[in-house]
Parts: sequence; structure tokens; C-alpha cells
Amino acid sequence: MTTHTTKIAIVGAGPGGTLMAIYLAKQGFTVEVYERRGDMRLEAVEQGRSINLTLAVRGLHALEKVGLLHSVLSITMPLKGRTIHGLDGTQKFQPYGKDEHEVIYSIQRKDLNIALLNHVDSFPNVKVFFHKRCVSLDKETKTLHLLDELSNETVSVTADIIIGADGAYSTVRQQLMRMQKTHYKQEYLDWGYKQLTIPPGPDGSFLLREDTLHDWPRGDVMMLAIPNYDGCFTCTCVLPFKGEVSFDTLNTESAVAAFFKNQFADVVPYIPGLANQFLHNQINDFITVSTDPWYYKDAIVLLGDACHAVYPFYGQGMNAAFEDCFVLSECIKNHPGNWEAAFASYQQKRLRNTNVLAQLSKENFDELRDKVRSPWLVAQKKTIAALNRLFPRTWIPLYTMMTHTTMPYADALERCQKQNRAARWLGIDLIIFFIAMCLIAVRLGEKTQRFWTFSWRKSARFRP
Amino acid sequence: MTTHTTKIAIVGAGPGGTLMAIYLAKQGFTVEVYERRGDMRLEAVEQGRSINLTLAVRGLHALEKVGLLHSVLSITMPLKGRTIHGLDGTQKFQPYGKDEHEVIYSIQRKDLNIALLNHVDSFPNVKVFFHKRCVSLDKETKTLHLLDELSNETVSVTADIIIGADGAYSTVRQQLMRMQKTHYKQEYLDWGYKQLTIPPGPDGSFLLREDTLHDWPRGDVMMLAIPNYDGCFTCTCVLPFKGEVSFDTLNTESAVAAFFKNQFADVVPYIPGLANQFLHNQINDFITVSTDPWYYKDAIVLLGDACHAVYPFYGQGMNAAFEDCFVLSECIKNHPGNWEAAFASYQQKRLRNTNVLAQLSKENFDELRDKVRSPWLVAQKKTIAALNRLFPRTWIPLYTMMTHTTMPYADALERCQKQNRAARWLGIDLIIFFIAMCLIAVRLGEKTQRFWTFSWRKSARFRP
Repeated sequence: MTTHTTKIAIVGAGPGGTLMAIYLAKQGFTVEVYERRGDMRLEAVEQGRSINLTLAVRGLHALEKVGLLHSVLSITMPLKGRTIHGLDGTQKFQPYGKDEHEVIYSIQRKDLNIALLNHVDSFPNVKVFFHKRCVSLDKETKTLHLLDELSNETVSVTADIIIGADGAYSTVRQQLMRMQKTHYKQEYLDWGYKQLTIPPGPDGSFLLREDTLHDWPRGDVMMLAIPNYDGCFTCTCVLPFKGEVSFDTLNTESAVAAFFKNQFADVVPYIPGLANQFLHNQINDFITVSTDPWYYKDAIVLLGDACHAVYPFYGQGMNAAFEDCFVLSECIKNHPGNWEAAFASYQQKRLRNTNVLAQLSKENFDELRDKVRSPWLVAQKKTIAALNRLFPRTWIPLYTMMTHTTMPYADALERCQKQNRAARWLGIDLIIFFIAMCLIAVRLGEKTQRFWTFSWRKSARFRP
Repeated sequence: MTTHTTKIAIVGAGPGGTLMAIYLAKQGFTVEVYERRGDMRLEAVEQGRSINLTLAVRGLHALEKVGLLHSVLSITMPLKGRTIHGLDGTQKFQPYGKDEHEVIYSIQRKDLNIALLNHVDSFPNVKVFFHKRCVSLDKETKTLHLLDELSNETVSVTADIIIGADGAYSTVRQQLMRMQKTHYKQEYLDWGYKQLTIPPGPDGSFLLREDTLHDWPRGDVMMLAIPNYDGCFTCTCVLPFKGEVSFDTLNTESAVAAFFKNQFADVVPYIPGLANQFLHNQINDFITVSTDPWYYKDAIVLLGDACHAVYPFYGQGMNAAFEDCFVLSECIKNHPGNWEAAFASYQQKRLRNTNVLAQLSKENFDELRDKVRSPWLVAQKKTIAALNRLFPRTWIPLYTMMTHTTMPYADALERCQKQNRAARWLGIDLIIFFIAMCLIAVRLGEKTQRFWTFSWRKSARFRP
């Protein structure tokens, strides 16, 4: 390992920040990571938001490159597909892929973060500082102003490069927006979510099927449950903020109990103290963030949710953040010493893809809460899967390309659109074929001519 | 006039802030206006951005309601249409409406602002404070924290209602975004602009036709010139920031001189010290801002560019801001004492409309810099104008509805889309008519049948 004198400061020791620290440490840089929260290995850290993540090929690929694949896989639960729970208690299974290799892996955010933090500790050239909240940045001197949340003192730290891995509400991004013209968009869903827990059964067993994601699609409301390594399930109960059935109206134990009995009856026996849990847990938002540019000159760059927070409904948020780490690391290698060129190349490779992910994540919400119930969608998915089995290299479902390959998201969408155009074109061909057959029939058969003459007269009779 | 004890603080004494102060003063409220800049009647205030505005029916209507129509009209220049300057020096006139009543009025921002400030002074219940920069807001105590830019001291002011009329880079909006979930979007054009001045001729005359806007559309670059009351023209030279011909590359006197000689030859003799002026004037941005919500509870509300900055290419920015003042004032009247209901109703009436204005203002940039040259667009505009003359109540061009009526912007766009659908439907009708005629011909004339048979055989001959 060659060592560099270049010092890199990373804001945020979440999964994205820590993986980036590992990538940079492996390249020999001196890395300092500043985290607002405490060390989750030593103290109880605030919970309640996005506790469950799913890892797919993109995320696993980025972990494999730093030798973390197997240790992380060992604390995941593989999911083969979705189990759709009907109102009447029926359960239907929809696979995520065409065979047992096309699965995704559920992992608790905390477990993943701890695995990464532990690996970070094995590098002498990385230091992680906790309880340090980034307050502001000076772009000219490349100085981070940090508030130590224990001593309440402000510390200033200079670095050669500053990386913002501080999530959807990123301070680094906000500071970046003050430095230069920025295209920026943030959007919230009219829905929010509360998390509930299904504990393991008395013998430590899973109370629902443990190799699938569970989905209770009810149109305007929805519940998801994802199995965890420790035998429990994390339920995400999604409701509108306002309206007849909403977080606004579900504010008494009886209302909550009646609502669950009505909508998610089959799961009620598994959640002890359901109404109480529901009323006491906080409501969380769904936010999408899109920003451009992702960097400032040769000084500051963003990754993960800080530059592209997406709704979680494609299960790709963490995968996209890990892909950022891999791509940024490659760009730094390919432009040694020229940081601005590295950042420009990184943004050019990533931005179009994360924009597509944001769009698809939004659309997948409608699928999970509603469309997934439709027989038409199920038939469509089956047809696409059948085509995929017939032509495994030419006809690939969008979900497969997004989830089970490392093809850039934007290329995946483009390819899917091409496939759809081809399908339409084939459809039109059929119509043309049909019309051609009719024409031949007209020329060959006299009967047809008689039919036309008859029609003409008949229609003439009805004229006003 | 009834007097209220309610105290309203307005941030920003631009045209929007001052007109709102007048509306509220007329309703008897106690109003205080805080402006970052100095009093433009007493001191030279920073210039260089959006010096020229155009007023149309919407803006005039809002001024008329407070008795300011005639005094403002007297310092405007009516514009009947656009004069398109070709590369070869030819000039073509495109009218803004079907007759001399359908015109817009050019006015200097400063003249309009001074007229409004003078009118504000006639109300004993309004006070304007200059050199006070809003730094932050406290939503609970409804306190404005202001920095006096002369003494450098911070002042705190409480009010019952706070109105943010502080423009596209609004501090009040930024503070509002910290208080609640906000959908927000900001976007910049890849083009910027510099302003140049064509002074009056030696005898005080206008050096170009004074009753039109002048447009030099050159695709990627563009220049506009608008006549002012004092005999000069304000030229807005629009160029991309980067690229072969851009602000990046036009950085020497010779390059600027060659560029103008090449693109805008006919105007060069009228601008003294052209290259020097160009190089020394600042480059300005075009920004679009969209935010939602526009208010916080019964405490804070936004108007004008603070909540809906648009590109200036529809000439409607000021008109939309003035319409805000009128609508907000009406909503306050209609919900006496219930400020939150007034603000909700105001946003509900305005947001959909200003979103449409933002979209059309963006599209109009492409028209002004490029499409305006196309014979197809000219023919299209002529056809629409002819239809408008034939059916003046049923067929109204979009530009006319947007500019010469007070029909809500969104309704105008909807109506235009209906008209377009009808046109398409009529087109389809023509095809149906044509097909019907063909069918009748087939039945009546033998010749046609022979033609068909012949065609069939002919095409059969070419089969592979």
C-alpha cells in the first residue's frame, strides 16, 4: 500500500461514509470520519428510521471489492420474492427473479454499519470521531466547522478533500448550494410511515415465512414486513398524513385496533401491544432529493443520500450509495492528483443513473401499495418472466436489470424501453398481418364482397 | 377606513412588497416594511439586474384596484409586438395581439418602485425601513431578526403576520423551509445575460422603433432590446456560460467586437464603447423557483418571486407578483381574523397558476431565441390570429389569454389545450371526410376501381 499525504475528511459514518473510508484507506489516503451520533457499538443510538435495508448485486459487488462480501452476507436474510397478503388472509408469492440466484438480502442497518465500522478500525490510516456535528464549511480554506455535541465546543478541521456522506438532510450539500449555482429538487410523499416489530416466536422461530418480503397492499394504505437475522420482522406501516384513514385520524387505541383488524387481520396476533406500539412510535417522512452539481472544484464532493435520496420502494438506496463509493474510488484512481477531473467524471457516471433510480423508486410505491394486487400486473409479470426464460440474454425484466445486475440504472431503463418498443412493434406487426389477411380474403372470396355491399346498404338505411 | 391593531411586517420593499403594503394599508392594518437596500429615491442603489419589466392586464388590474393605474401608465412605453432582426439586417414585425388594445407596457423597475414607494408614504399606517437585512425568523414568537447594514447592529421586531416579498433568493422562504416539510425546486438556465444600453439619439430620439420589443434570435445566442420612457433602450444579451461562443470565450475586446459584428451588426453603431461595456458588466443568472407550501400556519406567507421566480421570457413575472397582492388581499378580506384559512385559500388559488407560468416562461425562451425565426411558427401564429379574428370569443391564442386577460394562467393553458384538441379533432374530421369522399368515388366510378386493380397488380409484380 502506497501512502499519500493527502488528508480526506468524510462527514458521516453511516454505511456510505464508512465504506468510502475503507476504499480510500486501501488507496493509502489519510482519512478522518466525523459522525454526528455516538458510536453505536458502545451506546444506544437513536433508532426508528430505515432500520431495514436490502442489499442486491450492486451493493454486494462494492463490498466484495474491499473483501467484505462474506462477512456481511453472513448477517443477512436472503429474500426470494414478495408474499402478497390479501384482505381475506390469502397469501400469494411473487418471485424476484427466475431462479434461486436472483434474490436480495435483508440486513439491519445497525448490523451493516457495525460490520463496516469494525473493518474501518483495522486501517491505521483511518480515524473515526463521534458526536461531531458538521455546522458549516469554508470552501477556500477547506475547513470543516464541527460542534462537539458532548462538550458543546466548536472544533475546526482542515483537509485536502471533504466528502459529504451525511444523508438526505446533508449539511455539506446545503453548504455546497451556497457556493455555486445548483439545480435542486426535494419532494415529500403525502404518506409517512411508522415502524412496528413482530418478535420471534416462543422457540425463536419466525412467525411469518422468513424467505420473502411481506406486502399488505391496500391502495391508500400499505404494510411491509421484512425478516431479520435475529428472528423478528420489521413492519413498515405506510399511511397518508391526512384524510379519512390517516395518521391524523388513527389517534386512539380503539381506532388503531379497529384499523388493523380491518386491514391486516392476519398479522394482529403476532404484534404484542400493537395499538400502544403504533401510537408511541414516531411518524417518519419519505423524501426524494436531487441535486446538481455533486462537487465543488477540487475540494468537496457528495455521495449517497446526500446527493440522491430516493424513496425506499425499489430497495436500492444503500446499493446506489455503495456503488457511488466504488465509482468514486475508481475515478480517483483514474485521475491521480486531479481531483476536480475525478469528481466531474464521478458525477457524469452517476447522476443520470441516480435520477432514473429516483423516478423508478417513486413509481414502485404505486406498485407495492396498489398495482401488485391487479391480475393484469401479475399476468404481465408472468409473461415478461416467460419471455425472459425463453430469451434469457435478449429479454430481461427491468426489475432484474435494476436488482440482479450492475448495468447502470439509466442503461437498464433505456434497454427496457427498447424492449417495450419492440413489443409494441411486434403488436403492430400482428395488426398489419391481420389487415393483410383481410385484404387477401377480399380479393379471393366473393362472399366478403357481398358482405361489404350489404353493410353499405344497411348503413345507408339508417341515415337521417 | 377601519383600523386594525394587527401589525404586519413585510420583508422586501420591491414592487411586490410595496404594492402589498398599499393593499394592507387600505384595509386599515398597521404595516412595517423592511428593505435590505437603501432608499432608491435618495441614494444610488445597486443596478444591473432585471431593470426592465413589462406590465400587462394582470399587473395593471392590480394597480387599478389601488388607484395607481394612470400614474404608472404615464411612465411606461406601450409595445405593440416584437421586431425580429434577421442576420442580414431585415426587420419583421410580429404583433402581440389582434388590435391596438392588445399591447404590453415597458417600464423601468426603478421608476415603478419609486412610484409605489411614494404612494406608500401617503398612508400614515405604513412605515418603510431601509438597510435592514432579514437574517432569520422565529416562527413561535413571530419575530424577525434584522441586521442594520449601516450600523451593523441586529434588531428584533415582532409582528402578528410576516410577509416574505424578498425575491428569488428569499430569506423568509429559506426560513420557512426549516419549519415544515417543503416541496422545493430551483433550476438555472445554462445561459446567462449581460445588460447593455443604447442611449437616445443626439436629439433625444429613439434609435430603434420605439413601440416594439426588439429580438435578435440567433439560436444559441440572443439579444433583446426594450425601449425606455427616457429614450434609451435596455439590451439584454443572452449567451451560454460555456461552449464555443459563450461568456467563457468572449473575454477580449476584439472577440466581443467580432461577435457583435457577426451576430448583431445593425445595432453595433448605436452602442458606444460596446466591447468595453460588455466586458465590464456583470453576468446574471436566470433562475426558476417553485415551493410548496407558501405559508406557515397563521404566521408567515410568501408572495412574488419569493415563492415563484420564473424566467423572464413571458414578461409576466411582475404581473404574477401583483396578482398575488390582489388575491392575497381578497383572501384576507374573505376570511376576517382567520389568517391560516386566508393563506390556504390564497395558495390554493395561486400555486397551480404560477406553476403553469413557470413552465410557459421556460418554453418561451426557446421561442424567443430560436423558433421565432421559423416560417412554420410564423404561419402557425398567423393562422391562430386569423381563427381568433373569425371566432373572437371561442378561439383565443394562448399568448392573448396569458397577457391580455386576467383568466387564471392554469385555466388559460387548459383552454388552449382544449382548443388544440378541437383542432386535432377537426383535422381528423377532414381525414374522415376525405376518406368518405374516396369511398363514394369507389362505389360510383368504375375508373377508380380500375385504378385499384391496376395498383394491386403492379405491386404484385414487385414481390420478391
